[in-house]
Amino acid sequence: MGQVRFPAMNLTEEDCNLRLTTARFGVLGTSDADRSVHLVPVVFVVQRDRLVIPIDTVKPKKSPRLRRVANLERDPRCALLVDHRAEDWSQLWWVRAELSYRDTVDVGAWATPLVGKYPQYDDPGAVAAVLEFSIDRCSGWSGA
Amino acid sequence: MGQVRFPAMNLTEEDCNLRLTTARFGVLGTSDADRSVHLVPVVFVVQRDRLVIPIDTVKPKKSPRLRRVANLERDPRCALLVDHRAEDWSQLWWVRAELSYRDTVDVGAWATPLVGKYPQYDDPGAVAAVLEFSIDRCSGWSGA
Repeated sequence: MGQVRFPAMNLTEEDCNLRLTTARFGVLGTSDADRSVHLVPVVFVVQRDRLVIPIDTVKPKKSPRLRRVANLERDPRCALLVDHRAEDWSQLWWVRAELSYRDTVDVGAWATPLVGKYPQYDDPGAVAAVLEFSIDRCSGWSGA
Repeated sequence: MGQVRFPAMNLTEEDCNLRLTTARFGVLGTSDADRSVHLVPVVFVVQRDRLVIPIDTVKPKKSPRLRRVANLERDPRCALLVDHRAEDWSQLWWVRAELSYRDTVDVGAWATPLVGKYPQYDDPGAVAAVLEFSIDRCSGWSGA
């Protein structure tokens, strides 16, 4: 094996949380019934140790009964990866959050932060509900 | 639940393959020993029904014995998501590939396509080996 030029996981938990909070897109990974991995792109909002992913009516869904929700009800453990992409690889960074699904809840108090982060949701009925998670652990790396 | 405005999974398999082949970054999801999901950002090259992910010496690794490789040796099923991000959500698209891990092999014939796609690898020893996968299935969606 060749030499490793960069240390891995070099971001503090605080820095990871900041990058996670401000990132606009992520990839959610859940476990399927047969224990294979299901990946889906998501948007999300973070407040303290809570993260929510909207079930919206703006982006496409195969059915209102989402596979990700069925998966989370079976196994609440999941992961969210946010990453910054660049052709100058010294600018790459990523943060991985380990999450536990708690419940699907009404938008309620999440409406304001959701619209604040994503103006696309500034339309009554744009978000049907939110999936609520606790953030168990954050780790990440930056090349800069 | 609100109304769904877009059809889901509206890309043909041919279109998915084309978008997958030309995408420059992706997120790989594998299953951990405890069946939780492990996510990692990756670069990759596609040729026909084969996909390879380089084990490089350029980007960071916690150890030469990668968790993703241990996971794949235990369960070869995995998924790769590529997604195009934009604040105009009508420009969003994503492709999900279901993969089966086959083996870790020498760079060999993959060196030329790897350097062709990623000039960052144009340095002897930049890629220690490649993880080789078969592409079992591709599906995806575009808002455009």
